[in-house]
Amino acid sequence: MTTDRVNASIITIGDELLIGQTIDTNSAWIGQELNKIGVWVKRRVAVGDVASEIWNALDEESRESQIILITGGLGPTADDITKPLLCKYFGGTLVVNEEALQNVKTIFEKFIKRPMLESNLRQAEVPDVCTVIQNKRGTAPGMWFEKDGKVFISMPGVPNEMKGMMSDFVLSKLPEMFELPAVVHRTLLTAGIGESYLADRIKDFEAALPSYIKLAYLPNFGLVRLRLTATGKDVTAITNEVDQLFLQLQQFVSDVMVINEDKSLEDAIGLLLVKSGKTMTTAESCTGGYIAHVITSVPGSSAYFYGSIVSYDNSIKQNVLGVKAETLQTFGAVSEETVIQMANGAKALMRTNYAIAVSGIMGPGGGTADKPVGTVWVAVAGEKQTIAQKFQTRYDRRRNIEVTTIQALNMLRLAILSDLDQEK
Amino acid sequence: MTTDRVNASIITIGDELLIGQTIDTNSAWIGQELNKIGVWVKRRVAVGDVASEIWNALDEESRESQIILITGGLGPTADDITKPLLCKYFGGTLVVNEEALQNVKTIFEKFIKRPMLESNLRQAEVPDVCTVIQNKRGTAPGMWFEKDGKVFISMPGVPNEMKGMMSDFVLSKLPEMFELPAVVHRTLLTAGIGESYLADRIKDFEAALPSYIKLAYLPNFGLVRLRLTATGKDVTAITNEVDQLFLQLQQFVSDVMVINEDKSLEDAIGLLLVKSGKTMTTAESCTGGYIAHVITSVPGSSAYFYGSIVSYDNSIKQNVLGVKAETLQTFGAVSEETVIQMANGAKALMRTNYAIAVSGIMGPGGGTADKPVGTVWVAVAGEKQTIAQKFQTRYDRRRNIEVTTIQALNMLRLAILSDLDQEK
Repeated sequence: MTTDRVNASIITIGDELLIGQTIDTNSAWIGQELNKIGVWVKRRVAVGDVASEIWNALDEESRESQIILITGGLGPTADDITKPLLCKYFGGTLVVNEEALQNVKTIFEKFIKRPMLESNLRQAEVPDVCTVIQNKRGTAPGMWFEKDGKVFISMPGVPNEMKGMMSDFVLSKLPEMFELPAVVHRTLLTAGIGESYLADRIKDFEAALPSYIKLAYLPNFGLVRLRLTATGKDVTAITNEVDQLFLQLQQFVSDVMVINEDKSLEDAIGLLLVKSGKTMTTAESCTGGYIAHVITSVPGSSAYFYGSIVSYDNSIKQNVLGVKAETLQTFGAVSEETVIQMANGAKALMRTNYAIAVSGIMGPGGGTADKPVGTVWVAVAGEKQTIAQKFQTRYDRRRNIEVTTIQALNMLRLAILSDLDQEK
Repeated sequence: MTTDRVNASIITIGDELLIGQTIDTNSAWIGQELNKIGVWVKRRVAVGDVASEIWNALDEESRESQIILITGGLGPTADDITKPLLCKYFGGTLVVNEEALQNVKTIFEKFIKRPMLESNLRQAEVPDVCTVIQNKRGTAPGMWFEKDGKVFISMPGVPNEMKGMMSDFVLSKLPEMFELPAVVHRTLLTAGIGESYLADRIKDFEAALPSYIKLAYLPNFGLVRLRLTATGKDVTAITNEVDQLFLQLQQFVSDVMVINEDKSLEDAIGLLLVKSGKTMTTAESCTGGYIAHVITSVPGSSAYFYGSIVSYDNSIKQNVLGVKAETLQTFGAVSEETVIQMANGAKALMRTNYAIAVSGIMGPGGGTADKPVGTVWVAVAGEKQTIAQKFQTRYDRRRNIEVTTIQALNMLRLAILSDLDQEK
């Protein structure tokens, strides 16, 4: 398939990306979506709000790829030079697009409820040599240009506006223009094993894969995703083949596998709790509500998640969760004894089947010789027992909170699985 | 200064970036840090794990920039081809670096506590034509190459490892090699005004700026940062000039300004609470703990944040926060009456000065004709009164939670400010 491959380049425009004020999440999303329809993102380039740089990027990337996606540079403020440049690059004239103008007016009437400025009205102008991609979520229209068999698509940098245009128009239009291969992914998630150990365990499997099936390692702090990607012309044939290989792969990692789908740890926990009809809560000190946030980021989590107590101050640990004053005094807030009482207290208060409790020192301050920054105790109260475990994390505050959350969620997952096993 | 400008290019290597499995947060951080020392990031390029693509990117970016930073491609698994390629590109031979080897061994002994694999040992090999940048946070060493007056720096893609190498070595070494201009930033944060309205308000100010002082708009869902950046040879002169202009700018936006530093809304709230000696809590339904997480992401927040009740289930709203059953029945969980009772209940339970309460429908499910997805009620209980406000968000679940959090935090900020004003 290599010779047939349809390549895309993503050009992101804006000084804010280069000076690092904005993190580019758009490119990752675009990469995923293009990948699903068989388009390979060959390069991603970010350039500033400089006409010559944008022009050069258009020239360069159209030599590399058949599809060039451009995001950013379409906002209402003065530093935006992209649209006039695109107009010139493709030899057109700026004209008002009536549908886009109506859209700008509607958004101002319905949501913004303030008078429009001239800069807002100018957003409805488009080059007369493009197909307009209407923006249902914002004021700047998208533009689809074609030149020498290549497609150039310009979209706003606002993530939900760009995603809307891709989903509504671009992702269905591209397969009409290009002969795209079938692409089949199979993904599983592991927990508690490092990338290099996984690689060592499945190296023979990986070495024996045919050239059109690739294995990717996608590690993320204690979690590693493994993904098989098959590319070919015959979707049935490659689906059968990748399904066979995926079964083999699952056998190699069965002891560390969280789920054999492209889902998250919190998705997997949600499915287990729904399946078993059980409920959960959290009692969080150092994670400050982050575990609850991760659990509730799953749509439908209200079926099994009742709520949380964030007991940052020791008075809340005592008064709301019922941790004994003498426990806090003797062992400290970051101790096995405290997290066990927190977990049991939350489970009783919230009347759930499971409770996670965490207490630790996330940094940068708060560490002692005895309990350095990164010391974390996690407890999981289940139906039959409450277990506790100590972890040592070694990152900055933000990462420490994220890593602790993954460890706590995995402990809960194992506790639920163990209970399900015993019920059999 | 334009002709003197020292440009950098960032090359990120890895299929996982192109297929969108990893969001590139490294480039934004690097851009910020380089900007502070007077290096301008001209381009950012992401390429896959393909030797020819990496080679081309090195050639291309060294024509554009004097400094080429390379992240990724140094992990222990088989798809990593970057190090041998760099070795060839710069005409060297791979040799074991003793210090790096010792580092790999120590990390395995202290943290990983499992036997090393051959792939781990190979991480200690480096080209004999580079300066090794030791990695204090992981196993892969960094590499500093020089060629034709240009610098090439290869670092791992793991964010905290890359950041450590930049802070420990790269950011202090670059100013020794290049004559860098002085760069002075002044940043303020606004809330509750859109980018185009801000731009309209300060357009004369912006038009009158000298060429070496730039104004940037950095919008993020209801918050807009304004940043003045002055670049020049004489640090004292440009500091004085930018400080003068910054004072003018603050006057134009005084009614919507959150803080006149490069700090977040949650930082600003923390400073206000510390200054006034007050405390806070949150009672969260639809945000599921995210407000508590944002507040506790600030180091030292334990001085003013006591904890939270995440009352996802109505039973928790009743039993823990004391919302009346008849209120829930008559007005529903997403109502002015409910959030006011939630806020008052949390404030009493937690014994704090302030409480935020939120209840809403974040989607994708749960909307009704009466209360569509995106309907949110927020209450803030203060020392003298409890106020409530309804918002309508219009994004996906994740963004709706983030936007609601910003709105709730800004309501709290205004309530604290109003109390401080009355105390005067």
